Amino acid sequence: MEHKLQLYNSMTRRQEKFIPLNPPFAGMYVCGPTVYSDSHLGHARPFITFDILYRWLMHLGYRVRYVRNITDVGHLENEESGSGEDRIARRARQEQLEPMEVVQKYMNSFHENMNQLNTLPPSVEPRATGHIIEQQEMIRNLIRNGYAYEANGSVYFDVLKYNEKYKYGKLSGRILDELMSNSRDNLEGGEEKRNPFDFALWKKASPEHIMKWSSEWSEGYPGWHLECSAMSIKYLGEEFDIHGGGMDLKFPHHECEIAQSAAALGHESVRYWIHNNMITISGRKMARSLGNFITLDQLFSGNHPLLSQAYSPMTIRFFILQAHYRSTLDFSDEALKAAETGLSKLFAAAIRVQLLKPSASSTADVESLRTRCNDAMNDDLSTPLVIAALFDAARIVNTVAEGRESLNSCDLDILKSLFDTFLTSILGLVPAEKSGEGIEAPLIEMIIAMRQEAKEQKDWKRADAIRDRLASLGVKLKDRRDGADWEKE
Amino acid sequence: MEHKLQLYNSMTRRQEKFIPLNPPFAGMYVCGPTVYSDSHLGHARPFITFDILYRWLMHLGYRVRYVRNITDVGHLENEESGSGEDRIARRARQEQLEPMEVVQKYMNSFHENMNQLNTLPPSVEPRATGHIIEQQEMIRNLIRNGYAYEANGSVYFDVLKYNEKYKYGKLSGRILDELMSNSRDNLEGGEEKRNPFDFALWKKASPEHIMKWSSEWSEGYPGWHLECSAMSIKYLGEEFDIHGGGMDLKFPHHECEIAQSAAALGHESVRYWIHNNMITISGRKMARSLGNFITLDQLFSGNHPLLSQAYSPMTIRFFILQAHYRSTLDFSDEALKAAETGLSKLFAAAIRVQLLKPSASSTADVESLRTRCNDAMNDDLSTPLVIAALFDAARIVNTVAEGRESLNSCDLDILKSLFDTFLTSILGLVPAEKSGEGIEAPLIEMIIAMRQEAKEQKDWKRADAIRDRLASLGVKLKDRRDGADWEKE
Repeated sequence: MEHKLQLYNSMTRRQEKFIPLNPPFAGMYVCGPTVYSDSHLGHARPFITFDILYRWLMHLGYRVRYVRNITDVGHLENEESGSGEDRIARRARQEQLEPMEVVQKYMNSFHENMNQLNTLPPSVEPRATGHIIEQQEMIRNLIRNGYAYEANGSVYFDVLKYNEKYKYGKLSGRILDELMSNSRDNLEGGEEKRNPFDFALWKKASPEHIMKWSSEWSEGYPGWHLECSAMSIKYLGEEFDIHGGGMDLKFPHHECEIAQSAAALGHESVRYWIHNNMITISGRKMARSLGNFITLDQLFSGNHPLLSQAYSPMTIRFFILQAHYRSTLDFSDEALKAAETGLSKLFAAAIRVQLLKPSASSTADVESLRTRCNDAMNDDLSTPLVIAALFDAARIVNTVAEGRESLNSCDLDILKSLFDTFLTSILGLVPAEKSGEGIEAPLIEMIIAMRQEAKEQKDWKRADAIRDRLASLGVKLKDRRDGADWEKE
Repeated sequence: MEHKLQLYNSMTRRQEKFIPLNPPFAGMYVCGPTVYSDSHLGHARPFITFDILYRWLMHLGYRVRYVRNITDVGHLENEESGSGEDRIARRARQEQLEPMEVVQKYMNSFHENMNQLNTLPPSVEPRATGHIIEQQEMIRNLIRNGYAYEANGSVYFDVLKYNEKYKYGKLSGRILDELMSNSRDNLEGGEEKRNPFDFALWKKASPEHIMKWSSEWSEGYPGWHLECSAMSIKYLGEEFDIHGGGMDLKFPHHECEIAQSAAALGHESVRYWIHNNMITISGRKMARSLGNFITLDQLFSGNHPLLSQAYSPMTIRFFILQAHYRSTLDFSDEALKAAETGLSKLFAAAIRVQLLKPSASSTADVESLRTRCNDAMNDDLSTPLVIAALFDAARIVNTVAEGRESLNSCDLDILKSLFDTFLTSILGLVPAEKSGEGIEAPLIEMIIAMRQEAKEQKDWKRADAIRDRLASLGVKLKDRRDGADWEKE
């Protein structure tokens, strides 16, 4: 398979040529959501980032197995110390629901949001509670290899022991000595651990805890980090190509995952670690725990004090892709507005290019645009450069439409295919409603003409009533001097 | 909770008042799909039937926990004998996919179809592979109670032993002696079973089998019937209100479920067994195994030799609700066409009723229509009678629109709420625009209303111009005194 894809590997801290283990197959594991609340803008970024990588790998000809998990147990309130209540159990208590009802509710809304954002579904979406046996087997394996110990019905990973043979902290650059001096015992499990930075593989459940399973150690539940080791190995093998996730997962989550898998298998399992950067708001990471988040549903409805209007899922997707995935991206209402304007220009050009007529010769260079798009994607998924090339393509569409430039039939096809391939298939940006189907548009135009008559007769009441009735059907009018433009929500 | 809901209980073979265990809570378990192929029309019926029951229970004020499983392992090719290859494993081999990729693919398409048919998602959707531990515990329990035995790494349920204390075959009316004379040993497991009608709780996996889990008996996988016992008890308790499914599941699936649960718990767990009848095609049950099925996607696209056109998901839903759930329903293209016409009349009336103006007094009786709808739903979910009442309501809408009858403001509200409550909320029939298929119909109705205004102002020229413009778009008007009917060419 001939290609030039380079990816930045967080483990080696440099950009490397992507060479998969078993071409034409490629395996990718991405850390999915903990389903205990509505997804917010910060969640959208990793799933859009790895959707782009998934689409690009398939475009290059790979047969990709894309595994993204659902965390439905074991993710405790305090991520770093691994203490506190299970997030799902807590939400279940608050909402007076069975924990699995909480899981179902937020998993459904996550899937709906991902669908609205036009991310492709992963090939396998395994759930932590669906793999308790696999996780228990991994714990047995770790105990057998001497890297885990039982205490009081719970089982912990022995980080010091691991560090004797392997190097703990490689990915995040955290050094064990530092960890040791910074860690303080936390309340739960603190007295059971040999060292404060040891982490739970299995936690004994308190009697009132609902989500628990039997085991030789206790009625309990698995630690959060364990599921990703167990499920990535189950579905992708003991060694696989890509592991992705948000940069905030490097420590402790991915560091623990690496330790678990290496201690169980005798070798690391991931070849390329890919991490997307954070979405910030006024310079701080957007996170539920910081209380500065905006949910996707709020963005889509405009129902949030920081928003001046609703933004379509495609605007959100475009906003995220305008930045390179390894840069931070600062949220603001103004930035979203600018994204909306920019995207509508690209969509307009994608429609207009279909209407262009070829000339005998070309005065514009479109071949170089195609090269720029391909090179940008191969250069660690540089979507901002792809978007810049598409804006240049849009400018050419407009100058050709105005007769100031010309394209021959072959170049015109290249220009069309640029929008098809890069805007639609790779960036996954698709206008909300494909117009031209049915007679909706002419009916709306007819109604607008009737409203124009009313206005000419100075019957403002009727004109307003027509506008309001259209609005109730989701058709928004924007008045022009001699009529109105309209768009469907 | 005051209500008169009666449901036909397949176990007692009579209609009974519905009295839940813990009002205002109600628990309902419904057998979900085995996700190894596209859903067909026959699958739509149970999920629409129990969606209606779910909606009606909530309408009556119950807080319903609706559990519907996903079978993603253990369902073998030959249902009655419990032999053959695992359906998912077989499909995985055919499509060269990991079994969980097959599961994901068909689970996604099932969810999409259910969404198109406007069925509400269940509160919990547990997967068989997500509950291996719970199933293993139930097997241990059954072995401990003397109702199961191990043979060669597999574990079977001892039907004769069970029949000594309980009565096997109560639900389906099959008598053990008959079963005994009719059964013949099947190839797999036949020689391990004490009796041919014993069924597998755990099957030892052959070496090439991918979907398997460790256990004290063998590396293997659970029998198909076990998951429903284990998961219904886990999420609804040892005794719960309603268990639903297609009539074809009575034997062996539900019979085995009853036996497992009773032998494990010492008592039966289900209070009301509800079964929907089959969809037939030329008088035979529509089933994948019989090769006479039409998938939902084929129905929605019209892409099947037996179909003259595409049918919308709402037409399919209406077609199914036109028959009582306990009657057979014969598929034909003509019947679907008739359903489409009937439904469009109800939708037109639901829009037109919004435009009616109240009079000082009423000449039509709408209160009795509401009573008819409520009584029909309480009479074992008699949706055909609800639909008949709605057609009567539509006739009243039209006669009032034509000025031949009148309604006062209170009765007009009742008439509107009939469509809101029964057509939209309970039957779940929503015109295309709300389910995202365009807003043509309401736009046309809006134009017709504007034309009516022109006529009232005796502006015949404008009225004619509107009619001609609509005609040019393929919309033909048929004038009534107070508006117009329309149809698209």
